[in-house]
Amino acid sequence: MSPQTPTTVRLDEQHLARAALTYLAEPGDPVLGVLLEACDPAEVLAAIKAGTLPRAVPGGGDNPVRGRALEAALGRWRIRLPWLPGDEQVEAACRDGIRLVCPADLEWPGGLDELGPARPYALWLRGQADLRLACLHSVSMVGSRAATGYGEHVAGEIAADLGERDWTLISGGAYGIDAAVHRGALTVGGITIAVLACGVDYAYPAGHADLFADIAAHGLVISEWPPGRSPARFRFLVRNRTIAALACGTVIVEAGERSGALNTARHAAQLGKPLMAVPGPVTSAQSAGCHRIIRDWGATCVTRADDVIEMLSPLGTTLAAAAPLTPPRDPGPAWNAASAASRDELDPDSARVLDALPARGAAGTSTIAAEAGVDLDTVLRCLGLLAGSGFIERCDRGWRLRKPPSAG
Amino acid sequence: MSPQTPTTVRLDEQHLARAALTYLAEPGDPVLGVLLEACDPAEVLAAIKAGTLPRAVPGGGDNPVRGRALEAALGRWRIRLPWLPGDEQVEAACRDGIRLVCPADLEWPGGLDELGPARPYALWLRGQADLRLACLHSVSMVGSRAATGYGEHVAGEIAADLGERDWTLISGGAYGIDAAVHRGALTVGGITIAVLACGVDYAYPAGHADLFADIAAHGLVISEWPPGRSPARFRFLVRNRTIAALACGTVIVEAGERSGALNTARHAAQLGKPLMAVPGPVTSAQSAGCHRIIRDWGATCVTRADDVIEMLSPLGTTLAAAAPLTPPRDPGPAWNAASAASRDELDPDSARVLDALPARGAAGTSTIAAEAGVDLDTVLRCLGLLAGSGFIERCDRGWRLRKPPSAG
Repeated sequence: MSPQTPTTVRLDEQHLARAALTYLAEPGDPVLGVLLEACDPAEVLAAIKAGTLPRAVPGGGDNPVRGRALEAALGRWRIRLPWLPGDEQVEAACRDGIRLVCPADLEWPGGLDELGPARPYALWLRGQADLRLACLHSVSMVGSRAATGYGEHVAGEIAADLGERDWTLISGGAYGIDAAVHRGALTVGGITIAVLACGVDYAYPAGHADLFADIAAHGLVISEWPPGRSPARFRFLVRNRTIAALACGTVIVEAGERSGALNTARHAAQLGKPLMAVPGPVTSAQSAGCHRIIRDWGATCVTRADDVIEMLSPLGTTLAAAAPLTPPRDPGPAWNAASAASRDELDPDSARVLDALPARGAAGTSTIAAEAGVDLDTVLRCLGLLAGSGFIERCDRGWRLRKPPSAG
Repeated sequence: MSPQTPTTVRLDEQHLARAALTYLAEPGDPVLGVLLEACDPAEVLAAIKAGTLPRAVPGGGDNPVRGRALEAALGRWRIRLPWLPGDEQVEAACRDGIRLVCPADLEWPGGLDELGPARPYALWLRGQADLRLACLHSVSMVGSRAATGYGEHVAGEIAADLGERDWTLISGGAYGIDAAVHRGALTVGGITIAVLACGVDYAYPAGHADLFADIAAHGLVISEWPPGRSPARFRFLVRNRTIAALACGTVIVEAGERSGALNTARHAAQLGKPLMAVPGPVTSAQSAGCHRIIRDWGATCVTRADDVIEMLSPLGTTLAAAAPLTPPRDPGPAWNAASAASRDELDPDSARVLDALPARGAAGTSTIAAEAGVDLDTVLRCLGLLAGSGFIERCDRGWRLRKPPSAG
């Protein structure tokens, strides 16, 4: 799976199954998400193809996925079976720097697991950066397409400052703030990630074809949709949860009252991740959404990169101040190297919270807070940081230590 | 004491004593504040004149006013004795719309009593509005002298909107935001109050002589300093606590990192009153202070008059929505009329908090919260509202019901 292999890539059964599912189901399909938490992806794919899904998913008694919901889901997935490419075609798509990353892979970012059943089935990547390492210190920064000159200027400045300090930027691919964020990061040679709502080989908007090529050359263009898939309005909203989940925190730069950026903000808040907003003139409609979430949602008012870093490194002694983790040339032992290096760099609160997790099994947020002796705000911030750094992951019963993944 | 009496006003002993003290001592003098809580003003004045102050003020055993502190205070007050005008001269100052209001007067605003020993000794007023009624629904709005066009525009707009909805504006007398606030209120015929750091007959800055005349004609120009007293830099900081204490809440429109407006903001926060700030471009140094208090002090981000009113009327059903209380032509029975009218208009939380105060004596904030069954944030907000409306007042042991004042 080395990104620059010139010959055809070979994918194992699990990867092929997850790749196929990205063709059949829309990301965020609640039925498929629950199925994949309980069943093997290859078995799920085989059952969809055969039309022989079990009438109820094994697992919790309050599992909503049974009977008619399952039948309806089977119907909407099977309707796309004629479009499903063969395994060879899927493998052939993995070229020109395009590759597939699945939940069990070393490169899978821990933050996505916080989405639970809404977790992506797999991610398509275009570019050479290591996705998991890039997301360890990352900020998603999004805003209005119809941005003002002020908004684009500020987004570019903050992104450049963050990029210079080895923070990865994460945004969408739209005109306006999204583009200003990527350009700001690229200007200083920073890593930036564009999360698209269409295939990573699909330039939407068309005017951003060159920008996406630049991003892929220095960072990553990623998507939950397979190559070739076109964008649709509803896909942007589904995509937004991934932008929020990948990053350590989210910054809204400009957003009108009905901007899609507020949807990303809501996801960040729901995930318990730091939510920030850049204020602007109260006479500007494009800043109205930012002011509203500062006032009503408790988003933190940030005006510069320092403010953002301070929010993501509560005690000022944490990962932000540590030596930057640059992606290793050989991504193989990345997980162990990163975790060993990072553990020593944790701030005292995060270290206590990490120590408070049980060695086996999981614990709820309030139990962890009590065990660590920190308040609920602190434990939420630390859990987010620890999850974003890959130490822990969310599960049904709360949070658990993340084990080094086994192959496959 | 009717403001438009053409003949010479006669002041009683208490008023003459408090007027004299405004000539002798700087406002906010901690020693005089404690003395006036324990002793009769006329006795204090007589003792200063005679140099025969008691060596310790009667009252609490932890009273800091004794011995050397008292001797030093006596020295600094007596040094101004040669400047003290005679009673006839003080009475002669009460003309051309200038008058004196003291703590026991009907027109004394309850909010000032929240300052405890830092309460003004008396207030000099120029103008005809009833100070206490005007402050019942009032917002202090302050900001930078070196305001931008944006800041002046926004301050004027919000002030005009508040004035149109019968909220009194309170500000200083400086160029920039202060002037924009007054002008905005005057434009719509609203009541506005300028709180000066010099005599009410002293135009500082000189360019505001006409503005102060307009304010006095439609609202009030007030000061803790006697007529003729010139401004000094330290006086502005002392003056700021009065701006915060008079109003139901404080709005900062523009403030650089070292602006004096942040001093007013701190007073509002210390008094437990709603603190608000208007954001602006992050590229503007004049908005940096606003963004900082939103981020670090928990000031509420407000962008328009509606936001301000919502903050001052927590449940949306309170005094804001009620019929405006216009000053009665005969100010005599004002206290009873206002209190009877307002009590029915209290929101449910404020009514519960009011009922939770003991009929006699005082109770602490947490006791009141427990008795009323509301959380601490709510009780603080309600206590501020009730104090601002004149129902209750702060005292050494917490809060107590405010009795209709007796004469004198």
